[in-house]
Amino acid sequence: MKTEKYSIGIDVGGTNTKFGIVNRNGNVLFSSEVVTSYHSTIEGLMLQIFEILQPKINEYGGIREFAGVGVGAPNANYLSGHIEFAANLPWGNIVPLAKTVTAQFKLPCKVTDDAKVAALGEMKYGVAKSMNDFIMITLGTGVGSGIVANGEVVYGQNGIAGELGHTIIIPNGRLHPNTNIRGNLESYCSATGVCITALEKLGASNRPSLLRNIPSSELQAKLIYDAAIQGDIIANEVFEFTGEILGIAFANFIMTFSPEAIILFGGLAKAGDLLTKPLMKSMDKNLLKIYKGKVNILMSQLKSADAAIIGASALMW
Amino acid sequence: MKTEKYSIGIDVGGTNTKFGIVNRNGNVLFSSEVVTSYHSTIEGLMLQIFEILQPKINEYGGIREFAGVGVGAPNANYLSGHIEFAANLPWGNIVPLAKTVTAQFKLPCKVTDDAKVAALGEMKYGVAKSMNDFIMITLGTGVGSGIVANGEVVYGQNGIAGELGHTIIIPNGRLHPNTNIRGNLESYCSATGVCITALEKLGASNRPSLLRNIPSSELQAKLIYDAAIQGDIIANEVFEFTGEILGIAFANFIMTFSPEAIILFGGLAKAGDLLTKPLMKSMDKNLLKIYKGKVNILMSQLKSADAAIIGASALMW
Repeated sequence: MKTEKYSIGIDVGGTNTKFGIVNRNGNVLFSSEVVTSYHSTIEGLMLQIFEILQPKINEYGGIREFAGVGVGAPNANYLSGHIEFAANLPWGNIVPLAKTVTAQFKLPCKVTDDAKVAALGEMKYGVAKSMNDFIMITLGTGVGSGIVANGEVVYGQNGIAGELGHTIIIPNGRLHPNTNIRGNLESYCSATGVCITALEKLGASNRPSLLRNIPSSELQAKLIYDAAIQGDIIANEVFEFTGEILGIAFANFIMTFSPEAIILFGGLAKAGDLLTKPLMKSMDKNLLKIYKGKVNILMSQLKSADAAIIGASALMW
Repeated sequence: MKTEKYSIGIDVGGTNTKFGIVNRNGNVLFSSEVVTSYHSTIEGLMLQIFEILQPKINEYGGIREFAGVGVGAPNANYLSGHIEFAANLPWGNIVPLAKTVTAQFKLPCKVTDDAKVAALGEMKYGVAKSMNDFIMITLGTGVGSGIVANGEVVYGQNGIAGELGHTIIIPNGRLHPNTNIRGNLESYCSATGVCITALEKLGASNRPSLLRNIPSSELQAKLIYDAAIQGDIIANEVFEFTGEILGIAFANFIMTFSPEAIILFGGLAKAGDLLTKPLMKSMDKNLLKIYKGKVNILMSQLKSADAAIIGASALMW
């Protein structure tokens, strides 16, 4: 049995990389962040993080007290240890993340993608503590997912399972620009998708809307939310439409996994009832009777500022 | 470690129930079948099966040589041991299957649904022998599925995971008569769905077709297959359409599970290339690049007559 007291969590994002020292109870004892894009190599980024962490590691008893370094990063593959084809990171197609971290820190390293990190954090310290079967859905710029079945994260044959955001909901539907595939969940239910829906609705009629005062280049999901809260009809329709699509997807996930819960995380999840009311209605309409009323739709309980660091650190326990 | 040499497999179908004695290598040493619908109670059915098997059980050394009885049945729930809301079985909404079998045979009993039985059989003795992650899809009167992730069957929180046939592929699409839900996979890609597609295509034009010689009440997927093989254009279009829908669904399953293979089983799977060619094309079109070319579409290797008995018996090892 492992006896180390601490683990390091690193959350690599397109803009900033956050990291910290976390104890077994999920408390962040130290955290900081650096600018990801400043570094033209992954070695450079990890060197900077190491230099910031080293005095803290020593303060907490040196590396012998650390179980390792868990890293969450876009498209990070648990099985290979690489970041693979991440569109928003500058270091090439295949980035040897785990190897680089181990070389720098002299500690074991495990990596996985952002949504699986969120699922791990939720399972170890959050709302999924007692659950063996649940699905984490992150609704942000994109739509990510982390799936836990039989108490284990589903990684698939090659570490890349769980791209629920890319499952097709409307065949031949809206074009997803990064992938050139039509009709996937992310093209509708990400923050980006919500803005496109709003622009489509604004263009389809002359109905008055608060959103017409916002230059389209400045439109954001948050502004659409604000308008909806003020009673703007088009803005409300945007969330209804988004919830309806998400509800179909959730019905599919439930009939696939029969999870105890689907847990929402990320900026768009903050829309709350505005999103979850139409979602639940559409979900119910598309569910077989045997599944109805058996799955909770929950909000993440981890503080968003630290959640990614805590989740990443949980990779090492 | 278990040392019993044999296990009993029972496959409860709407029409007939097959059963047999199977050894650890998956060889069926004895098998027989009875008429399911003859019995107005599950106790009656199990009594008849027991009376046929009892002399054979004694011949093979008595119940001490048997690990137990595995039963596959429509809507059978691994966790509860019940058959739950099976439309084609006569014994009511909740049927205490495992309990009845154990009372009759004085042996442990595990139950699950047909498609999960097929997956277990394939994992233990068939084409999925070395696989930790695969999906079994049964294409028959309905569309069933058994999912294996991390080497374990996915049952979900309450034993009812894996209804991939009921996932929505065309929102607000074709009505599925048994469930009153629109656009699920089964409404298009079951043998029943294939016949409906043919009738729709026949009704939509006056183009000549061999299928026009068949009374619509006598239309079967097998007859559409025969016509397609003879070059009938409408019959070929039916399989193209079916394959296209199935391909979207398979893309979704792959992006969800990243399995090593999807294994096809059941009458409609025998259409072979006629189905798999349009399937692969549509699947590829809807898959993220990172998944392309990584998943095999395979045909079941178990002899269909015995597969269900062997799979059910594998529940006990």
